Amino acid sequence: MKMRSLVRTNFLSRWNSVISKGHVPVALSTSLQDRFRVWDNKALFLAGLGLSAIGMTMLDDNMTQLESAPIENKEESNEVEIKITPGEFKADLPTYTLAQVNAHISAKTDGIWVVYKNGVYDITKFIAAHPGGTKILLASGKSIEPFWQIYAAHNHGDVHKILEGLRVGNLDPVDVKALEEERVKKFGAGPYANEPMRHPAMKINSNQPFNAEPPPELLMETFITPNDLFFIRNHLPVPDIDINQHKIEISGIGFGQDGISLSVEDLKTTFKQREVITTIQCAGNRRAEMSQIKQVNGLSWDTTALSTAKWTGVYLSDILAFYGIVDEDEVGIKHCHLEGLDRDITGQAYGASIPIATALDKRKEVLIAYAMNDEPIPRDHGYPLRAIVPGTVGARNVKFLGRIILSDEEYQGFWQQKDYRGFPPNVDYSTQDFHRFAGASIQELPVQSAITEPRTGQTWPLEGSEEVDVMTVKGYAWSGGGRNILRVDVSLDNGQTWQEATLAPEATAQRYGRAWAWTPWTLDIDIPDDIDHLDVVVKAIDSSYNVQPDTINPIWNMRGVLNNAWHRIHVPIQKPLREKDDDEDE
Amino acid sequence: MKMRSLVRTNFLSRWNSVISKGHVPVALSTSLQDRFRVWDNKALFLAGLGLSAIGMTMLDDNMTQLESAPIENKEESNEVEIKITPGEFKADLPTYTLAQVNAHISAKTDGIWVVYKNGVYDITKFIAAHPGGTKILLASGKSIEPFWQIYAAHNHGDVHKILEGLRVGNLDPVDVKALEEERVKKFGAGPYANEPMRHPAMKINSNQPFNAEPPPELLMETFITPNDLFFIRNHLPVPDIDINQHKIEISGIGFGQDGISLSVEDLKTTFKQREVITTIQCAGNRRAEMSQIKQVNGLSWDTTALSTAKWTGVYLSDILAFYGIVDEDEVGIKHCHLEGLDRDITGQAYGASIPIATALDKRKEVLIAYAMNDEPIPRDHGYPLRAIVPGTVGARNVKFLGRIILSDEEYQGFWQQKDYRGFPPNVDYSTQDFHRFAGASIQELPVQSAITEPRTGQTWPLEGSEEVDVMTVKGYAWSGGGRNILRVDVSLDNGQTWQEATLAPEATAQRYGRAWAWTPWTLDIDIPDDIDHLDVVVKAIDSSYNVQPDTINPIWNMRGVLNNAWHRIHVPIQKPLREKDDDEDE
Repeated sequence: MKMRSLVRTNFLSRWNSVISKGHVPVALSTSLQDRFRVWDNKALFLAGLGLSAIGMTMLDDNMTQLESAPIENKEESNEVEIKITPGEFKADLPTYTLAQVNAHISAKTDGIWVVYKNGVYDITKFIAAHPGGTKILLASGKSIEPFWQIYAAHNHGDVHKILEGLRVGNLDPVDVKALEEERVKKFGAGPYANEPMRHPAMKINSNQPFNAEPPPELLMETFITPNDLFFIRNHLPVPDIDINQHKIEISGIGFGQDGISLSVEDLKTTFKQREVITTIQCAGNRRAEMSQIKQVNGLSWDTTALSTAKWTGVYLSDILAFYGIVDEDEVGIKHCHLEGLDRDITGQAYGASIPIATALDKRKEVLIAYAMNDEPIPRDHGYPLRAIVPGTVGARNVKFLGRIILSDEEYQGFWQQKDYRGFPPNVDYSTQDFHRFAGASIQELPVQSAITEPRTGQTWPLEGSEEVDVMTVKGYAWSGGGRNILRVDVSLDNGQTWQEATLAPEATAQRYGRAWAWTPWTLDIDIPDDIDHLDVVVKAIDSSYNVQPDTINPIWNMRGVLNNAWHRIHVPIQKPLREKDDDEDE
Repeated sequence: MKMRSLVRTNFLSRWNSVISKGHVPVALSTSLQDRFRVWDNKALFLAGLGLSAIGMTMLDDNMTQLESAPIENKEESNEVEIKITPGEFKADLPTYTLAQVNAHISAKTDGIWVVYKNGVYDITKFIAAHPGGTKILLASGKSIEPFWQIYAAHNHGDVHKILEGLRVGNLDPVDVKALEEERVKKFGAGPYANEPMRHPAMKINSNQPFNAEPPPELLMETFITPNDLFFIRNHLPVPDIDINQHKIEISGIGFGQDGISLSVEDLKTTFKQREVITTIQCAGNRRAEMSQIKQVNGLSWDTTALSTAKWTGVYLSDILAFYGIVDEDEVGIKHCHLEGLDRDITGQAYGASIPIATALDKRKEVLIAYAMNDEPIPRDHGYPLRAIVPGTVGARNVKFLGRIILSDEEYQGFWQQKDYRGFPPNVDYSTQDFHRFAGASIQELPVQSAITEPRTGQTWPLEGSEEVDVMTVKGYAWSGGGRNILRVDVSLDNGQTWQEATLAPEATAQRYGRAWAWTPWTLDIDIPDDIDHLDVVVKAIDSSYNVQPDTINPIWNMRGVLNNAWHRIHVPIQKPLREKDDDEDE
């Protein structure tokens, strides 16, 4: 039930715009209009249109973000839910065989039909309004169930209602049974049935794929994050890999026709073992704040889509040097692809690429890691091998690493080409051909900091027993590219004056330009008399003297990534109970 | 005469605060009070106090900045100047021999005396108020003339007046003659007599040492700046070096007892020739804007304390590798000192250091350069050898390079230890022991951009002949550490909405992470109807997605360095003359 409310905001607004646009048959549309809240948000309305234009490549991400919105619609919680079970047999409709459905694959002739359990649906008029774009066409004339199993956000009552609004018939029971047998054979109990256990303290932003961040108070208790509390950002189901069978393939420029393959044991016995302590941060960290300015598209991460671990493995630069590849200028390589073994239903793996200079530079310390905090890497974090690219966005720290390819072009997969790029603030889903403005792929991240304690909105009770009440403020700072944190400034007056926080010694001891791990910080603030709240602001400065921007608005982007504006919290101050109120007159 | 007004603002305000504080003898103080403007600037008042605390090491910088303030006090231009010729013989005063003056070197016993030409002065009570700090004590019992020749800002009527207020006698004419003969023998016509010629278009921020920036319109005409227009930042007189005699010394860790020395010819014949196109930027670029927020200490650079050149030379990493130094972790080196052959009167050379990883990393392309834009490096830019440290603050691109020392500590000279560091915004000259907060030495610079055309305040005349009047806005963007410029955003509404500028192709063709040269940009703005001005704002984004901060206030620092806030210009719009005013009613 909790997930139902978690997914509501984004989901309803997206689909409500679909309905407003009139793409859904009238009979359905009317009942949904009554049922849905009316959202006064032009951006979201336009988002619905824009998404249908971008095509199939956007679906993965759009769908995962449906589970991302914060709990907002508490006023809806007492509404009566009208349950619809999609795909139930309906006696008043005609029956079609799968062969007949298979023939409906053209909008121009017979229309486009799909199957869901016992139901047959005509989606022809719906395609343009589908928030996931034209990827829906992959199911033309077929069952949509395998797709819904990957993109689990479809398993929601409101989607079910829209689907039933497109219903044209029943599928022949013989075909229903055959399809179900085929489905079970292919997917077992579903692609997400074999996910690992997760720590109950994690705040879940999406269940399928699983995305979760630790509570800030727990995260900042240690410099190295315990594996169980390390934030989890999965794009697809977690694969189940036999470490004894697993070989990493290395191919592309410099590796001849066939490339090579190395077992985990080969890595351990052939190359020098290296250790790197890095903080990995998701590009979407602090997206929730950005969406408060104007709605963005993506999982609603708060301030803890980052964690720190000690990784053990071998330098990628050592491996490449072993095979004679040292200087990118000599061999003409421009990019190093890193491809995982997690795949979507079309067989597309999660993959990314990094600039070849990053891969070859021993001072960048790119690791093929086989241990995380002295344990085999947990499945959620990339078992058995993970690419660790220190100082670089989490998305390039590819898990379940299966292939490394040296190339003269960037990785062509969705998450390198269409996502994890920096859109300009003037581009949103209403912009014609917005994907043209996607900007460069995100690699090194900018300087960042956030307050983790107290949380915004959390009341701070005054002791009232001391001369001056003190509030201990804690947080982290970090910068990409190994840039050390030089200073963390805290302000109580929106940046007019600043106090300098104390930085963790483990952090300040890091080498110049190779400060891959974060800088936890703390500051005791004297709470002024007679105030009922404190607004606390933090900003950090890195070793290139880059600073965080004052405000979010000028860095707003439609994907909600790269939010590194000053972090601000609002803390109500609770006065102590007084024995005698007339003390004030003394 | 122009220089007189250039130096006025900072100078008077500094010394006025000296007088307000009562450190100057009363007889002088009264006349000066009448003469000087009263400055309502607490920061400057406190600056005077703070400077006396920091001690001798600050003098170099304080003095060079006296010539730095913008022309502001136009209302003063009609005032009658009372000329004082310092050091003239005064018949009503007693005569002292140099031996007697030499004996006055203790504030506790006989007081501290100094000599200037024919004059003898008791500076005992003035020391605490001296804006240059206790470095004045170097002249105890001696002539101050050699110091004034280096720190030419003393050659100013108001300083002369203060000096004469401290007058206690005449120097024995025999000693006057002897001192003058010694001075000429040592300095010839003065240390600045042998400066090179400079281009008349340069805007001079200080004459001795010479500091000047090119007009923005000329600077941005070419991607590579002509040598004559390259901004000049000298800390000391320009040395005159015989290239045939010159040998660079390399010593320190890894170079044994004696080190090595290499002639320019040795460099050319032993190592591979390399070319690097870099933009060099002064840490104080755009200081003038920062001082509008609150007075800072330093030369008043506008937006063009940066330029771009092609440098030819050899990689420092190639030289060090030749002598077996490749991996900093193996040899225990932490810093690479770079020392020039320009020296102050105490014999202290200009010097700096860079992290050893920067020096050893071939991808950082640190160069020992012998040519600038295919010519021998001009004297103002470091003849015959200059360290080029791409992506790093100008101050570490040491000119007239004489020595390289590998060390486990930073260079200990003034400009590495006391200057070119980032003070926090909450620290100014009123802060007790402010030098404790000096921050890390500036190395890589943060992302930067500025508008060079039109200039702020420059009226833009509307053509009135076209459908829409267009204003072409030009400028540059650049980031330290080789980080490419991804985007330049321009706003006409203080950052609410943005337009994307067009970037120069020479700039965008630079390699990832090795974009040492700037990114010129241009944008045609449609001028809205019926406005009388435009406020234009620019910000840039680099390949780590670092952005510029919105405002200057939160990055303000007492040295006025590292100003990379959004650059803003105000452009009055001049309407075209209309033939018929009643056209508007049609």
